[in-house]
Parts: sequence; structure tokens; C-alpha cells
Amino acid sequence: MRRSILDKNDRLAERNRGFFRARGLLVLNVLSSPGSGKTTLLRETIRRLGSRLKTGVIVGDLATDNDARRLGEAGATAVQITTGTVCHLEAEMVARALKQLDLTGVGLLVIENVGNLVCPASYDLGEDLRVVLLSVTEGEDKPLKYPPIFQSAGVAVVTKMDLAQACDYDRDTAIANLRRVAANAPVFEISAKTGQGMDAWCDFLVRQHQALKTRDPLGL
Amino acid sequence: MRRSILDKNDRLAERNRGFFRARGLLVLNVLSSPGSGKTTLLRETIRRLGSRLKTGVIVGDLATDNDARRLGEAGATAVQITTGTVCHLEAEMVARALKQLDLTGVGLLVIENVGNLVCPASYDLGEDLRVVLLSVTEGEDKPLKYPPIFQSAGVAVVTKMDLAQACDYDRDTAIANLRRVAANAPVFEISAKTGQGMDAWCDFLVRQHQALKTRDPLGL
Repeated sequence: MRRSILDKNDRLAERNRGFFRARGLLVLNVLSSPGSGKTTLLRETIRRLGSRLKTGVIVGDLATDNDARRLGEAGATAVQITTGTVCHLEAEMVARALKQLDLTGVGLLVIENVGNLVCPASYDLGEDLRVVLLSVTEGEDKPLKYPPIFQSAGVAVVTKMDLAQACDYDRDTAIANLRRVAANAPVFEISAKTGQGMDAWCDFLVRQHQALKTRDPLGL
Repeated sequence: MRRSILDKNDRLAERNRGFFRARGLLVLNVLSSPGSGKTTLLRETIRRLGSRLKTGVIVGDLATDNDARRLGEAGATAVQITTGTVCHLEAEMVARALKQLDLTGVGLLVIENVGNLVCPASYDLGEDLRVVLLSVTEGEDKPLKYPPIFQSAGVAVVTKMDLAQACDYDRDTAIANLRRVAANAPVFEISAKTGQGMDAWCDFLVRQHQALKTRDPLGL
């Protein structure tokens, strides 16, 4: 049964992908533990990108619409998915949420997944890029302890760099562990609070969006 | 299929429970996000309990035996379960791990679950008490965003209190949110690093263990 759920999800994810490409959207699937700073990073990203790259957001949580409200206040068009007891987003949930999202002028669509370092790894949503966050407060060994999700990362973002000293963050070990599991993913080290690393991150997203125009939209 | 997996798990969990009670073990199922400080809390708990209450540990992770090694070094008998891609521990995994654990003299058995605030909520392991951790770095709204696991908590532990100031932790909001979801669970506020709250926590465990002697072992 799990096999057929995943097969169905993979088909619907490809349909989403075709839709996203036809609309010229750069789509991120943002994954991390609960409380790694996904929403704070996105809020600051939306604020800084401003009119350079208009952002739409789909946010998944078991309960509450706190995150969609926070991101809406930052200037994004935002839709909340509440999953109840489901531990991950699926392609079909994203497709349904898209119906509620005004995509006029939107170039970047960010899907903030349920906070979970395990299950969302198995569910393609049709995204261009998986962004996996690791907060400095979580410990340097997380890439080794949750390998599937870090292996699937297109980009890794180390968050809460402002807390690095207070929690004795060992940068060399963390980066080495990321490299072992996600060898080819670019790594950004960011504090959304102080702004450290935010310019490089936003420039990266703008470049990725521009690069879409030079790609065959159906990726063939 | 999911229904029958849960039914089977519930039966095996009751078998575990009978076994634990016959052996006079106090059994904790420790649940949190990845990186909330489960292992650090347990290491300090084991060290402080010392011979007052001998501790055995079963640790679950997708990969690595880092945690079992760390807890073994602190003086516990420790067995690592590596789940591969499975996002939670099940009663049968615990039963298998028990075969490898020397329970001689052990009064407290701690099961450190896979770091995940969603899926482990559905799987009874036969424990006496679910201990759900919330780190001050994760944000005060986590009990509202992950209600099933916090609703199932027998005890809530706020960890990393030493970082409270650095991350602008709002104590009143966090405690109010815990109270809304886990109204009857005692709350401990702890820093395993500075020792804050560790005495009260260890005394609580010793009292819970002593109380087992006055209970009917099969809970009737």
C-alpha cells in the first residue's frame, strides 16, 4: 500500500512539475526539524527579495495557521495546509493549495514542509530544489543521523549562526558531515536575525530563477 | 494496512508492558525533534542518578550508534536500534533490543525514540511515561503546531534553558502553550549544561520508580 501511495504521489508530483515549469516558477521544498528556523528564514528572504523576485508560499503544519500569517505579513501570498496527523506534505495537497494561491507576478514558490527530518524525504512535490536546513543548535551530527533527507538536498542551509558561539557549534565538523552526506549541495551559513549570509542566499535564488529561462521547460 | 500495523504494535506494546512491570522497571519513552537535547539530558541524568537508580537505555536513530556510545560512556547499559528509513520506534524493535540488554540491577529503562515530533506519537512501546522535550531554541509555538505528541505527554521537559536569553525565549508563552495542549503533564525546565533543574528531575524519577512498588504490577 505504501508503494502505491508513493507511485501515485510521484505521478502527481510530475504533473505539478510540468505546471510549475509552464508558469516559469522556481519552486523550493524547504525541509528541516521542527524549530530549525524555516519560517524566520523565509520571512527574511521574502522581505529582502521584495520586488526583485515576488514570492508565493505554501506552508504545511499539523495544526495552526501561524506560519502563513507570519509570511503573509512579510509580503508573500501565502496558503496554509494543515495536515492533521500527517507527517509530511504530498503532491496532491500542494496541487489543492495552488488553487487558492494567486500566482500573478510570482517567480519564486516556496513550499515549507512539515517540520520533520524523516518522512518528507520520500515525497516529491514537483519542486526544482530541496532546501534542507540544519540549525547550529541541533548538533553537528544530524546529517549522519538522518541521511536520507540530507542525501536528497539540492541546497543545505545552516541556520541560527548568531547562536553558534552560545551553543559551542563546531563548524568544521558540521560542514564535514554535510559534505559526507550531501557532497554536491551548496552550503549557505545564515543568520536571519543578524542578516549574515542573507545577501548570498537571495542572490543565489535570483540566479536560479534566471537560469530557468535558459532551460527546456520540460527538462528534456 | 496502517490500522493493522498499529493493532499489532498495540498488542506487542502490552506484552512489553507486562514484562517491564514484572521486572519492576520504570520505563520512559523520550520524544522530541532532532537536536532538542535528548541524549545530553539522558547522559546527565544517568551520571547524576548513578547507583541511586541504575539506568538502561535503548536508543533509536535512522543511522549511527553515536548515541548508544555516548550513553554507554556515561555509565548506562545501552543498545542502539538503527531503523534505516523508519521514522519511529515500534514495540517489536524494543522487544528485540531487550534481548541484547543486561537488565541486572536496572531500575530505570529509558527508550530514546527517533527524533521526530509527529510519527512516534502513534506507537505505544509499553512505557510507563512519555517524556516530550521542547528546546528553548525551537520556538514557543511547537506544542500548538504538533498537538498529538504533546497531548500524549506524561511529562514535558523544556531543555537548553542556558540558551533562553540568547534566543529570546518567551517563557510565559511557552508554558501557556504547553498547558493548553498537555494540561496535566508536570513541566521541568532544565539545562543539562549548567545543571539547572537536574536535581528536581532526578528526584522525580526516583519517586516514580519507588511508586511502582505500591502499584499492582498488571495495573488492575
